[in-house]
Amino acid sequence: MSARDLYHSVVRQALENDGWTITHDPYNLQYEDVNLAVDLGAEKLIAAEKENRKIAIEVKSFLAKSTIYAFHEALGQYINYKRILEWTGKKRTLYLAIPNDIYNKFFVKPFASRIIKEEKINLIVFNPEENHINKWIP
Amino acid sequence: MSARDLYHSVVRQALENDGWTITHDPYNLQYEDVNLAVDLGAEKLIAAEKENRKIAIEVKSFLAKSTIYAFHEALGQYINYKRILEWTGKKRTLYLAIPNDIYNKFFVKPFASRIIKEEKINLIVFNPEENHINKWIP
Repeated sequence: MSARDLYHSVVRQALENDGWTITHDPYNLQYEDVNLAVDLGAEKLIAAEKENRKIAIEVKSFLAKSTIYAFHEALGQYINYKRILEWTGKKRTLYLAIPNDIYNKFFVKPFASRIIKEEKINLIVFNPEENHINKWIP
Repeated sequence: MSARDLYHSVVRQALENDGWTITHDPYNLQYEDVNLAVDLGAEKLIAAEKENRKIAIEVKSFLAKSTIYAFHEALGQYINYKRILEWTGKKRTLYLAIPNDIYNKFFVKPFASRIIKEEKINLIVFNPEENHINKWIP
């Protein structure tokens, strides 16, 4: 299994361990001339809200190339997906899922953390060794 | 010469043909923990403004991979560079330079043109065969 597919399956399992139901794998997006696909769609019943919370999750391994180029691509991909969700009236919150080592090495530092905050990027930090979600940001 | 370097030199020449002076090759950006570099920095005296207009230009070939992934990366890169220019108080307008074939094939269509408008991305469309700038958008 490629590292990319491995991380996909890790995040899928970690979400299920956290009580989410995987409803789409992948979650397809369509807008005019483009067809795109977010890695996963999931739902969870939040009792206090008396309804299902719906999310879409793009898993990024940050393994294939320089961290900064992987970050450029992940940011652009997130913004493109978020715009299509908005334009097509989908009430589904988008998350970028990243492994904990890259989070600790890059995302906590001044540059990436300011971008994440100002561009309002939602993060899921996962531990690939334990099929476990470490944190949801915000 | 690689296609990437060829396009870099085409845009450099096309800007000079258009009356711009290339002042930086590359134009370095620094913010806290990261050092990045935009491909070119240029200036031109605009008589009506009685001062030099300053720009930074990132040249994208769109040759290496799928158009949509190249677009994700170009969008993220543009936003990251624009934020650093803002945060460091630089009064320099950022442009993404793209070849006319990819502009006609992808950027004029509904998805990319709406992203470009809503994310306020400035474009330079160039003709790689003629060392010529076709248009500035907006």
